[in-house]
Amino acid sequence: MEFFFNPRGIAVIGATADQRKGGNIIISNLQKGYDGRIYPVTPRYEEVNGLACYASVLDVPDPVDMAIVYVSAKLVPQIIADCGQRGIGGAMLESAGFSEAGPEGAALQEETAKIARKTGVRLWGPNCMGLVDAVNRNVFSTVAPSIWSAGMTPGNVSLIAQSGMLAGAFLIDIMTHGAAGISKVCSIGNKMDVHEGDLLEYLLDDPLTGAIGMYLESIVDGPRFMALCRKSTKPIVVLKGGKSAQGAEAALSHTASMAGQGAVVSGALRQAGVVEANDFYQMMDLCRALGAYPDLPADTQNRVAVLTYSGGAGIVSTDFLESQGLVLGDLGSGSIDILQSVYPEWMPPKNPMDLWPGIIGNGTVKVYNEAVRAACADHGIDGILAHCFVGGFGLEPDLPTMARLAREAGKPLVCWISGERKAVHDFQVQAQKLHVPVFREVFRSVECLGAILNNPQKGLSVPESVGAPLDRERLASLLAGCSGSLDEFQSTQILAAMGIPVLDETLTASAGEACRAAEAMGFPVVMKGVDPKIIHKTEANLVRLDIASSQEVKRVFGELAAAMGDQGKVLVQAQIKDGLELIVGLVRDPQFGPCVMCGLGGVMAELLEDRVFAAAPLTHQDALALIGRLKSQALIDGFRGGQAVDRDALAAILVRLAQLGLASPQVLEIDINPLIVADGRPVAVDATIVLQKASHLFGQLS
Amino acid sequence: MEFFFNPRGIAVIGATADQRKGGNIIISNLQKGYDGRIYPVTPRYEEVNGLACYASVLDVPDPVDMAIVYVSAKLVPQIIADCGQRGIGGAMLESAGFSEAGPEGAALQEETAKIARKTGVRLWGPNCMGLVDAVNRNVFSTVAPSIWSAGMTPGNVSLIAQSGMLAGAFLIDIMTHGAAGISKVCSIGNKMDVHEGDLLEYLLDDPLTGAIGMYLESIVDGPRFMALCRKSTKPIVVLKGGKSAQGAEAALSHTASMAGQGAVVSGALRQAGVVEANDFYQMMDLCRALGAYPDLPADTQNRVAVLTYSGGAGIVSTDFLESQGLVLGDLGSGSIDILQSVYPEWMPPKNPMDLWPGIIGNGTVKVYNEAVRAACADHGIDGILAHCFVGGFGLEPDLPTMARLAREAGKPLVCWISGERKAVHDFQVQAQKLHVPVFREVFRSVECLGAILNNPQKGLSVPESVGAPLDRERLASLLAGCSGSLDEFQSTQILAAMGIPVLDETLTASAGEACRAAEAMGFPVVMKGVDPKIIHKTEANLVRLDIASSQEVKRVFGELAAAMGDQGKVLVQAQIKDGLELIVGLVRDPQFGPCVMCGLGGVMAELLEDRVFAAAPLTHQDALALIGRLKSQALIDGFRGGQAVDRDALAAILVRLAQLGLASPQVLEIDINPLIVADGRPVAVDATIVLQKASHLFGQLS
Repeated sequence: MEFFFNPRGIAVIGATADQRKGGNIIISNLQKGYDGRIYPVTPRYEEVNGLACYASVLDVPDPVDMAIVYVSAKLVPQIIADCGQRGIGGAMLESAGFSEAGPEGAALQEETAKIARKTGVRLWGPNCMGLVDAVNRNVFSTVAPSIWSAGMTPGNVSLIAQSGMLAGAFLIDIMTHGAAGISKVCSIGNKMDVHEGDLLEYLLDDPLTGAIGMYLESIVDGPRFMALCRKSTKPIVVLKGGKSAQGAEAALSHTASMAGQGAVVSGALRQAGVVEANDFYQMMDLCRALGAYPDLPADTQNRVAVLTYSGGAGIVSTDFLESQGLVLGDLGSGSIDILQSVYPEWMPPKNPMDLWPGIIGNGTVKVYNEAVRAACADHGIDGILAHCFVGGFGLEPDLPTMARLAREAGKPLVCWISGERKAVHDFQVQAQKLHVPVFREVFRSVECLGAILNNPQKGLSVPESVGAPLDRERLASLLAGCSGSLDEFQSTQILAAMGIPVLDETLTASAGEACRAAEAMGFPVVMKGVDPKIIHKTEANLVRLDIASSQEVKRVFGELAAAMGDQGKVLVQAQIKDGLELIVGLVRDPQFGPCVMCGLGGVMAELLEDRVFAAAPLTHQDALALIGRLKSQALIDGFRGGQAVDRDALAAILVRLAQLGLASPQVLEIDINPLIVADGRPVAVDATIVLQKASHLFGQLS
Repeated sequence: MEFFFNPRGIAVIGATADQRKGGNIIISNLQKGYDGRIYPVTPRYEEVNGLACYASVLDVPDPVDMAIVYVSAKLVPQIIADCGQRGIGGAMLESAGFSEAGPEGAALQEETAKIARKTGVRLWGPNCMGLVDAVNRNVFSTVAPSIWSAGMTPGNVSLIAQSGMLAGAFLIDIMTHGAAGISKVCSIGNKMDVHEGDLLEYLLDDPLTGAIGMYLESIVDGPRFMALCRKSTKPIVVLKGGKSAQGAEAALSHTASMAGQGAVVSGALRQAGVVEANDFYQMMDLCRALGAYPDLPADTQNRVAVLTYSGGAGIVSTDFLESQGLVLGDLGSGSIDILQSVYPEWMPPKNPMDLWPGIIGNGTVKVYNEAVRAACADHGIDGILAHCFVGGFGLEPDLPTMARLAREAGKPLVCWISGERKAVHDFQVQAQKLHVPVFREVFRSVECLGAILNNPQKGLSVPESVGAPLDRERLASLLAGCSGSLDEFQSTQILAAMGIPVLDETLTASAGEACRAAEAMGFPVVMKGVDPKIIHKTEANLVRLDIASSQEVKRVFGELAAAMGDQGKVLVQAQIKDGLELIVGLVRDPQFGPCVMCGLGGVMAELLEDRVFAAAPLTHQDALALIGRLKSQALIDGFRGGQAVDRDALAAILVRLAQLGLASPQVLEIDINPLIVADGRPVAVDATIVLQKASHLFGQLS
């Protein structure tokens, strides 16, 4: 990808002298920062912005590693062919008019992609804003020149954005406000070739990138994306558009890409150690917060000191802590002594540290610095939230000293800033240079400090084992010849063969067989009519519980057989004692492939809507983490004196489901409902496996 | 209160020529805007800032309506006495050193209050920033002069803030950023006399106030506060500090005032039609959004049109709608036709309206204006969220026209703005003048549009009836001589007498009585040992269910009597069939007085933590609204085929509990647990009434 990020020469195809047009803006932007060769390509001008033009990219001299293409869509296929002939490694297609613009555009995109594959030219875009590299001042983009108006603020946050206008607009905002620094921003548009996975891989190795933020509407290769996120030592923040039903519909009409089910996407991202954002500036704020403190000590906890000039703001900050996984730290005697030295006598030091009374006597700088020193020295404090005000009341703090003290102590410092407009801006710019994240809202400050202290990347292990190996041959033989929805007995037998605990059960064809089976497993038993034509057994009145004797077995067998028109068989099952009902299963997501679901079942299911997802493969640790994400931990731990769920046993089932999904593309869906946990052990009581219809596999009619 | 808001002359007591000191800043601020007479009072100067000084307030000539006092706390009592003698109506005490500063300060505050009561001087403060009136340019405050640096931006939002530093700092920020307008900001400090209720009452009648925001740590007179909020036709937004446990502790140490239980406070505010905020700028944003659209048509619904230059931003906005009680509106054919006239042919108009492709051909102004016109003409759209970008890409919209179209159609327009720094600021200032709320974050824009369209004030009726009258004499006679925790039988008998449905039950002293009672009510019955010394009957094994015959009644009677050492009696109760278990009750909040609680009981209680509160008195409508706030609506509506709860019957019980709390201060707490709903009808199955200990009422030892 170096030809995109560090090209030695760039051909601008579609160059023009008209300053309002993209073909000129690209050249202007290049001339302001890029230090390689620039070759305008156009048959209509001799010279653009003082640079000699070339009629065709074929005429462009060396060195030329990359082309930026801004011409009408219908000309693009030929241009890519020419780029290939000229030996250009990559082209950024910044023009629109492709798949986003109706069927005609989609056909053009397909044709272009074909030519690219043939010629080996990598394509970035189309319908995008290209690349802005604020550190190297490389603006390979039609972004409006106003982006330069405050200079470029370099930083260590890199972004990938699927939406072109958004990338450009957002970036102009960020760059001109000067409160946040940027490394590289990649606008990837329609992703016909280069996609978020390729760029993420590049940025993970980029020494100038410390944190990565992404706005995505779809993820091209979910498993690869997750693998990259997992191995990343850099914080990754993702804002996924289209997580709501109406949002997903809007995304489909915007980029023609499936957004996937919100809960599945969230589950997979969380599993991969990604921090999820839900708004644009919030994403940027989380990135710069996480990028500012990449290497916290491993024993960092979540205990916060709040430094404030306003008791009220201290209280409101405190109110936010719990929801962000933080607690107000208890001050130790050492830090209390330090504070007492700058507090009035009547005031006992506490957390939040209400500094105003001290400031009256000792001045802002001394009191804030001592308060930071106290928090840094205190073993009961992990992070510092400082409220700062500038432009009045003599409250200007000595931010460089505060930042230095905090950094030396390895404790993140985050500031909430308010004040007179110009003073606030100066403070933000200063803080950006000092790598201190400052925010304008109390909640955002707490949220970002929470993200830093609870950075999920910290605890993430690389998956080593994904459970005992699955007998793929056995699975294949069990599935051979099957298709569509399998009945309960078939489904549970396959799950049992794959090592998932199921109820003791026997499929019987006569009352005598049924009695023998029931006697062997012990009373009471459950009997179910199994008719391949009937999926909802309960609704069809084919399930009987509490059968306590052989005599009853005979009678029920007769009833069930009659109800099925003497067609089906009868399943005799050991009756499990009451227990917690769970639902576990396997679904396929268009982006992440096979995903495992774990949720609460029974009467609680509708009420609590407590379901969590993770993508396959699942390590045992992943599965335990997934179980830990259920809201109903109180039930899992044994509600009202019941025995706790054996989490390892449940995790083993989830790991197995993931393996099944990966082992056989034939398995579309597995639904174990209920999985009952009695005496702690989870057992599948009913299940449905849905396979691909035979027609998909063998070309037969099903 | 006019002497505080419109004084004809002001004495500044504690005037000084030292420009760094509050006593000078107050005078400077007055000189910049106030057009009445200013009298510096100090024995140390002849003249301050060109104004003649008076040695004592007693020497100040007419007219003088108000004094601003900024002297050391120990001088204040005498000064208030002097103010009274001079006939001054009100004093703003802006100095600190009172109850917030230890016991000595608290004593001074008490002494000052006493003198004020005697002399009739109203006191505002102490420990506060006084008043800033941006419309009349009256700054009666020690707020730093930087507040004037961008002029004063007048608006229709008035604020009341309990925290002094916060009020000053926040206000400088708001005023100098120029994006939001302010009418009056009242900093009320320690509230020794004038409190939020007094000021709220004033602001409700103030024609220059359109919306009211409050930051409060405590509420002095909850019932009066609620009554004011209820009758208000102006939107009220409250940020209550100290709602979390740690926050409440911080509030207690900050202002020595009880914050109250967060859920109770939230319940009472919601009941009174107050919008709750949780952060400072968010409070201000909600205020200016609500203040901008005070008179929406009564049939306004929650259907939003999203206008955007970025498909991605449209998707993210859509993702936020549901959580804010909004939906994406379906476009009608009329608005589709309007959009089609400015869209490229390949693009079908949809909501979110993705305007960029149209802008390429028709320009921003035309396309945005037509899109607003379309939304305004569409009967399926109630509000408009427009994404605007300024400072690049030729995206500057014609905001005045958009604002006019929306206002003429009676549909609120809210904008999300981003762009080049200076252009964004200019846009914010312009929008402020046009009364269009604009925000920097997508979420905040959606949140504020949600607050406008779902403004709870809309549906609020003034309480007319609070249920059938309660027989106060009967209640008094039932409670006479009782104190402390009443036992189950006493409690349920009192509730039954007050009209709350309870189980059929009889307290029996012999096995024979028990048998007769059981036979009369029909089997099965429940029997409970009632021993005044034992509160937790279940834990003491004094509860027996499923007693099916007279023989069993005799046996159980003997067992229970023996277990109680032949001391207690035995309660025989009809056994209710299984049903939904609720918990309802009465608690007393330090601020709101008697409050009613309604929540889920039984095994669900711990898991769902579903409890809601409202303050007494409760109308039937209030009670229905309270029930409607439970998360578990699915259970209330009859979970899995069960019969729905009779909401009117449940509401009647809640109304009654509120009446009980108001009727007798002796009743500290009522706990009906469980209230079982079988066949839809709620019945109290067990209850405890807690009365004040006798010592509190009669001075006896209990």
